[in-house]
Amino acid sequence: MALVTLTTDFGLTDPFVGIMKGVLATRAPGVAVVDVTHGIPPQDVRAGALVLRQSAPWFPAGTIHVAVIDPGVGGTRRPICVATAWACYLGPDNGVLSLAAEADGIRTVVELTDPKFQLSPRSATFHGRDVFAPVAAALATGTAPEALGPVVKDMTRLPFPEATHKGGELHGQVVYVDHFGNLVTNVSRSALEGFSGAKLSVTIRAIHVRGVATSYSSAQPGQLVAVVNSWDLLEVAVRDGSARDRLRAGVGEAVIVRVDPLG
Amino acid sequence: MALVTLTTDFGLTDPFVGIMKGVLATRAPGVAVVDVTHGIPPQDVRAGALVLRQSAPWFPAGTIHVAVIDPGVGGTRRPICVATAWACYLGPDNGVLSLAAEADGIRTVVELTDPKFQLSPRSATFHGRDVFAPVAAALATGTAPEALGPVVKDMTRLPFPEATHKGGELHGQVVYVDHFGNLVTNVSRSALEGFSGAKLSVTIRAIHVRGVATSYSSAQPGQLVAVVNSWDLLEVAVRDGSARDRLRAGVGEAVIVRVDPLG
Amino acid sequence: MALVTLTTDFGLTDPFVGIMKGVLATRAPGVAVVDVTHGIPPQDVRAGALVLRQSAPWFPAGTIHVAVIDPGVGGTRRPICVATAWACYLGPDNGVLSLAAEADGIRTVVELTDPKFQLSPRSATFHGRDVFAPVAAALATGTAPEALGPVVKDMTRLPFPEATHKGGELHGQVVYVDHFGNLVTNVSRSALEGFSGAKLSVTIRAIHVRGVATSYSSAQPGQLVAVVNSWDLLEVAVRDGSARDRLRAGVGEAVIVRVDPLG
Repeated sequence: MALVTLTTDFGLTDPFVGIMKGVLATRAPGVAVVDVTHGIPPQDVRAGALVLRQSAPWFPAGTIHVAVIDPGVGGTRRPICVATAWACYLGPDNGVLSLAAEADGIRTVVELTDPKFQLSPRSATFHGRDVFAPVAAALATGTAPEALGPVVKDMTRLPFPEATHKGGELHGQVVYVDHFGNLVTNVSRSALEGFSGAKLSVTIRAIHVRGVATSYSSAQPGQLVAVVNSWDLLEVAVRDGSARDRLRAGVGEAVIVRVDPLG
Repeated sequence: MALVTLTTDFGLTDPFVGIMKGVLATRAPGVAVVDVTHGIPPQDVRAGALVLRQSAPWFPAGTIHVAVIDPGVGGTRRPICVATAWACYLGPDNGVLSLAAEADGIRTVVELTDPKFQLSPRSATFHGRDVFAPVAAALATGTAPEALGPVVKDMTRLPFPEATHKGGELHGQVVYVDHFGNLVTNVSRSALEGFSGAKLSVTIRAIHVRGVATSYSSAQPGQLVAVVNSWDLLEVAVRDGSARDRLRAGVGEAVIVRVDPLG
Repeated sequence: MALVTLTTDFGLTDPFVGIMKGVLATRAPGVAVVDVTHGIPPQDVRAGALVLRQSAPWFPAGTIHVAVIDPGVGGTRRPICVATAWACYLGPDNGVLSLAAEADGIRTVVELTDPKFQLSPRSATFHGRDVFAPVAAALATGTAPEALGPVVKDMTRLPFPEATHKGGELHGQVVYVDHFGNLVTNVSRSALEGFSGAKLSVTIRAIHVRGVATSYSSAQPGQLVAVVNSWDLLEVAVRDGSARDRLRAGVGEAVIVRVDPLG
């Protein structure tokens, strides 16, 4: 039976995630469920999309990924299933699935309309329980995506900020801040390779971090350091500390990469 | 093998929940364990009872639910097992099991006295590890509740506040506040149906919320909205925001429902 | 297949733990994974070592424990596997494994060098994903520790503060503070037994707590109480409250145990 993962903004203080797992265990006995995270900031569709896109490649082929960051629950937004070359994604059609699905290559998008695969009656506030968990159970037990409802032409695509070239510089921004206070940018490893190995300088909040180090431990404890992280993205960190706190920076903060003028 | 769920006030920063799962894996190899939540506020038996009552119906029949909100651990309160028509509940006899068990229909209450099913020596501070996890493992591997100790006549029942009718009004209160800041009241869907479809007004902290909407998305972002939530209870929310923060309201706050005088 | 446990300082707001489970599920399909905790304070190797040491004995023999508190990731610290008489430990060679492994009795220490059991390319910032999860999967599916790399002579041992006798007194300190605000000391049950049953007094922040109670419930709500806790360590607590908040005390705070002069 395929694995099911869950990514939500529900947090872990309430029983909502547990209730979804109860529905999954009821409708797909023995299914294995893995939490990607339930710590997406409330209603932050972009953070959810980024996390899902960075996580899904590490799961087995055929995994069913459920992502419920769903500020429009109960309204007109469609619940969808996106089947790709790699996995199957379930969630609201608000863009939360789009970064992961586009990275895989989208095969089919289905609107979840068949009530047979959903709970009845359906609440207006918790489609994680009433729509997405039972549909995930159906997929895990062998139902084909096309049986869940009609194939639709497209899905909501999330505009994701790309770093841009200006003169010899690369202009990006912070797109994610992790638990350690590391500032993850949208500057990719391949974009950095465009500088052909020159010594670089990373500017954020008027601070110049000189050099892109090979690891946090290249810096002294308490020092700022720029590294390429495990998502192949440029990250500004403080060794054994928090760059978020040190620089008072968050998502959206501008970052500029250039050849270090001091070489 | 039956599923085991865990509901506690242990939080997730310490290893206590992991240790309980170690005992379960040792004594019932292969048992599936689902976390309902470990975020019950410390020592808040009523919150634990409400969460368990709202969660247990979504799990398969025969599930073993362990609830450890246990301020009296090591004292004279009894550890009990409550078998109902639907499930089996384990926890201290302080009321934490009572709302869920009463909703199911109680069949038998057993005091957990037989040391054979518990760890020895037994600590004075962690019966989740020493009593409830090993007893859950015993139940999951086929031990009958009656083998765990003597049947007792009754259990501690938790007084739960019911909404009351006063004149043409319904007087209730907030009984739960979730991670999003949604204010969940004790006014049920069926109590609202007593108003026969009239347009209603919900008053909380001198604010009148007009109408009971069909979903959060009926409101504009940032607006207050009253809905019937996934627990079939009236809830006051702020679309894409926090009603707790907006209204500075918490558990116990009075709520009045009446026919909207402005129609 | 052996159970795998995870102990980290990653927290649960990011997808890092979920990604490790994705790698485990890919390389060891069906493996059971239990979270000990992901709430170790960032970079706090000593807290991680203590938690692992208190948790591992409660898991089945042969369990594979992965502990990633790894401030030196990407630097020169070695990744190791420690096989003991009881279990197998994986983590950085910075002391995080040492308390648990020494308590068990160390059999073999292996440096994790064979890239065949690791992901490639290996990031500089996330060896939980690239080294420890795939190596845990290899162990769970039957690879012998000795196959993972060369046996090495020793590992980093963590100096752990022991309580000391001075005159007739026992001088210790707080070594852990839990979610409830209970202050756990390094004064063991056996050290207390050295006082041969005399009535004791516990001094912390100039407060004398008289007597070592048999449980929290020996105290009145709101009162300070000293107990021997589930780790067989002396703990100072407030019944239904937080000793951390009451005494404004944390890890490192001095604690003195002596025979109560007032008897």
